[in-house]
Amino acid sequence: MYKVDLNSDLGESFGSYKIGLDEEVIKYVTSANVACGWHAGDPLVMEKTINLAKERGVGIGAHPGYLDLMGFGRRNVAVTPKEVKVYIQYQLGALMAFAKANGEKVKHVKPHGAMYNMAAKDKSLAKAIAEAVYEVDQEIILMGLANSEMIKAGKEVGLKVANEVFADRAYNPDATLVARKLEGAVIHDADLAIARVVKMVKEGTVTAINGEEIKIKADSICVHGDNPEAVEFVRKIRLKLEEEGVEVTALSNFIE
Amino acid sequence: MYKVDLNSDLGESFGSYKIGLDEEVIKYVTSANVACGWHAGDPLVMEKTINLAKERGVGIGAHPGYLDLMGFGRRNVAVTPKEVKVYIQYQLGALMAFAKANGEKVKHVKPHGAMYNMAAKDKSLAKAIAEAVYEVDQEIILMGLANSEMIKAGKEVGLKVANEVFADRAYNPDATLVARKLEGAVIHDADLAIARVVKMVKEGTVTAINGEEIKIKADSICVHGDNPEAVEFVRKIRLKLEEEGVEVTALSNFIE
Amino acid sequence: MYKVDLNSDLGESFGSYKIGLDEEVIKYVTSANVACGWHAGDPLVMEKTINLAKERGVGIGAHPGYLDLMGFGRRNVAVTPKEVKVYIQYQLGALMAFAKANGEKVKHVKPHGAMYNMAAKDKSLAKAIAEAVYEVDQEIILMGLANSEMIKAGKEVGLKVANEVFADRAYNPDATLVARKLEGAVIHDADLAIARVVKMVKEGTVTAINGEEIKIKADSICVHGDNPEAVEFVRKIRLKLEEEGVEVTALSNFIE
Amino acid sequence: MYKVDLNSDLGESFGSYKIGLDEEVIKYVTSANVACGWHAGDPLVMEKTINLAKERGVGIGAHPGYLDLMGFGRRNVAVTPKEVKVYIQYQLGALMAFAKANGEKVKHVKPHGAMYNMAAKDKSLAKAIAEAVYEVDQEIILMGLANSEMIKAGKEVGLKVANEVFADRAYNPDATLVARKLEGAVIHDADLAIARVVKMVKEGTVTAINGEEIKIKADSICVHGDNPEAVEFVRKIRLKLEEEGVEVTALSNFIE
Repeated sequence: MYKVDLNSDLGESFGSYKIGLDEEVIKYVTSANVACGWHAGDPLVMEKTINLAKERGVGIGAHPGYLDLMGFGRRNVAVTPKEVKVYIQYQLGALMAFAKANGEKVKHVKPHGAMYNMAAKDKSLAKAIAEAVYEVDQEIILMGLANSEMIKAGKEVGLKVANEVFADRAYNPDATLVARKLEGAVIHDADLAIARVVKMVKEGTVTAINGEEIKIKADSICVHGDNPEAVEFVRKIRLKLEEEGVEVTALSNFIE
Repeated sequence: MYKVDLNSDLGESFGSYKIGLDEEVIKYVTSANVACGWHAGDPLVMEKTINLAKERGVGIGAHPGYLDLMGFGRRNVAVTPKEVKVYIQYQLGALMAFAKANGEKVKHVKPHGAMYNMAAKDKSLAKAIAEAVYEVDQEIILMGLANSEMIKAGKEVGLKVANEVFADRAYNPDATLVARKLEGAVIHDADLAIARVVKMVKEGTVTAINGEEIKIKADSICVHGDNPEAVEFVRKIRLKLEEEGVEVTALSNFIE
Repeated sequence: MYKVDLNSDLGESFGSYKIGLDEEVIKYVTSANVACGWHAGDPLVMEKTINLAKERGVGIGAHPGYLDLMGFGRRNVAVTPKEVKVYIQYQLGALMAFAKANGEKVKHVKPHGAMYNMAAKDKSLAKAIAEAVYEVDQEIILMGLANSEMIKAGKEVGLKVANEVFADRAYNPDATLVARKLEGAVIHDADLAIARVVKMVKEGTVTAINGEEIKIKADSICVHGDNPEAVEFVRKIRLKLEEEGVEVTALSNFIE
Repeated sequence: MYKVDLNSDLGESFGSYKIGLDEEVIKYVTSANVACGWHAGDPLVMEKTINLAKERGVGIGAHPGYLDLMGFGRRNVAVTPKEVKVYIQYQLGALMAFAKANGEKVKHVKPHGAMYNMAAKDKSLAKAIAEAVYEVDQEIILMGLANSEMIKAGKEVGLKVANEVFADRAYNPDATLVARKLEGAVIHDADLAIARVVKMVKEGTVTAINGEEIKIKADSICVHGDNPEAVEFVRKIRLKLEEEGVEVTALSNFIE
């Protein structure tokens, strides 16, 4: 049977600042990427988010990023592999404490924003991230862009990996994402986006921006809970996947 | 046989900023309180300090503080018990990741500066700190000012506790420290300071500032590595304790 | 003719985080207290808020606070007068640069949250704040709680001062605010709140929580733009004041 | 008569962390680049440094950088021109407040570290920085790498500019600095470094790494005060320049 995970970034509020309809989107996803206080999130939010995931039986993951709250972790920072390694371990450890304190476990790590994008292409950063996770807990699943350097690095160090795909993004023929600034980079038609996802999950292929059919592995689909429309899209995508006979379930139930 | 631990705050450097003769003072202490990136320290420094402690066989402890690098965690901040609880868990978890990644364990927690002082007197903060630690790891020893609310709270939640004493500070008759701004608060005579410590360890008493002999339990002695004189004092205090038949050894070897 | 200023805290968004209906509430207020990047706000937000105030002809003020984004500057921090003085100058200067770059001037300073509350009662902090402002620009108006130490300190150093009153808060007989945790501290009835404000402006008195009529000077009324109801309340209060023959105008038009 | 400025980065301490022999090196330099609290420095340090420069009659400059204390502002961050513009204005304004409060003026702006290097090559960032300064104070001198995009941008917007040269760095034939990781990038022989500087100042040329003589304008020489050797080098370079008939004087005395 086809299986896939739906993941969403949660716990991105900070102090008096609220972002995201966490309580809504968590009803439909199977994995939560919890911000760890560097690009978003704070200890109170982390603890609350862990408990929200616990109540819903959603898989808990760490979502570490750069120490750039002002830029929400979306700006590339010229870090060394050693730096990114300890940044991951710091943030992962912090989240693990909240998981442990609440009887839960961190099941996956998905770097955030600029760190995710840089590590998708940069072998040495990808390796540093994979090693960071492996040294702390060999059972944790490393989530990264499907077919990217991060996936390769995760496998190399001996971690389980989860290939992430994007419902609303166009792909280049080499399975990288079409840069947001280019035309056609974002797929605005919800039905088309959902149809693409179903195909990725069931057939393992996607139509690249040049029309070519390319191979892609879809272990987890990235969805958002920023606004009511986004949440509605997540509800729909889940419904459609289930109608199509795909089991939507947390990574740890099928990634080996 | 008499046993006592010598503890020092380590890993307080940050980025390009260096503080403390960590490599020197670690030769003489048996426990290291490692800053966790909030009032001092950063992930690179934490990882380095963990490894320094590992090499020397020194007990590793978390030294969490307020998010106040500019004030080095020495300024009281009006936090709630809930806030201090999650701040402790965040920082403790972060350090545990570095310990785990390097084959070590965090053996104790000692709050820093203003957090330490506030929790020594404030029952609800003390309880929040003790619970924070207990929820994350019941085996961790909570270090606090001897006879303080933090020690009581640690015992109440079921943690092992370590009573900390200060070699160079005068005590009030109720075993609290004489405030630094008062005359006679700091003992500048090294020999006198050492003699006081030996008495605290072997006889369980200290002469309070009013001349009264008071009871005090001395599980660990706080020492500093800020400058060469401080390090020399630590060397001397250790030597004297050993001459006096006191075994200087890490907390985990004798705290039950 | 009676004159009064309506002030609101603006520019409290930070990075990707949005707070406050700035574009709405600015239609009704005459002074904007602009956050300066420490407890809220960032340089992009500051620049945007300066321009919003400029378009609307609203008086621009600096709203400095503690470096505590996580606590939104609402937690007391044990700072020295010297520290608070340089913190004020730093933040005031930063805002003045944006004002200057956009052809505007900073007309007033109102400390935020915990800094405001501490300085209302603590003479030495109040004096440090007044001196901080005076040294940078003697023409700036210092806004503080009516009758508080901040007002006294402002006058003493030679600054123009603005007495601030609160529409929705109960007063103690000594003109301090009733602590929020006490019953009756907040006035929820909008009409009553507005009636109280009108009386403060026109008669210079307010009914304290014990029923006593006390004197109070009302140069500026603090209002909020957090949500649509708050904005509606500001619209109403302004309308009512104008109906009552009170001119609602920026501080610099009448404070001497 | 030949004139040149000697500039050094000062005020880089932060909280309890001390960096730089500011009191020593300031005896020999004519311009101080004062850190503005983002990559280094804090309000107390800024105020102290302004007064140190005032006592010595040294020209005061703002030294803004990225908000990256952990990386000391040395890591490239992918900021937009708009972002860098407001970051400059924020930091410049903050320093101007301290200057004004102490009866001084900010005479120049020199971006720090990664911001300096990025703006030396990137036209749009350079233009944003120049505009930032121009909007705040048209009299301020913009200091940048000799012949770089920053110098061009400064001239274009109408600012006075100061071409900065490095005593201890090798130059490429296009007047850019040889990257530090390449062999020969740093000139370790003090006498050679000084001789090069004298030639840059008096002849307007330097021998590039390929042996070619290239033109270079030397308005200011970058020197350091990190350690006693560095300070001694500054003393020597100043002495030699004066022996060679070069007047060592602050930028504002000769830049037009």
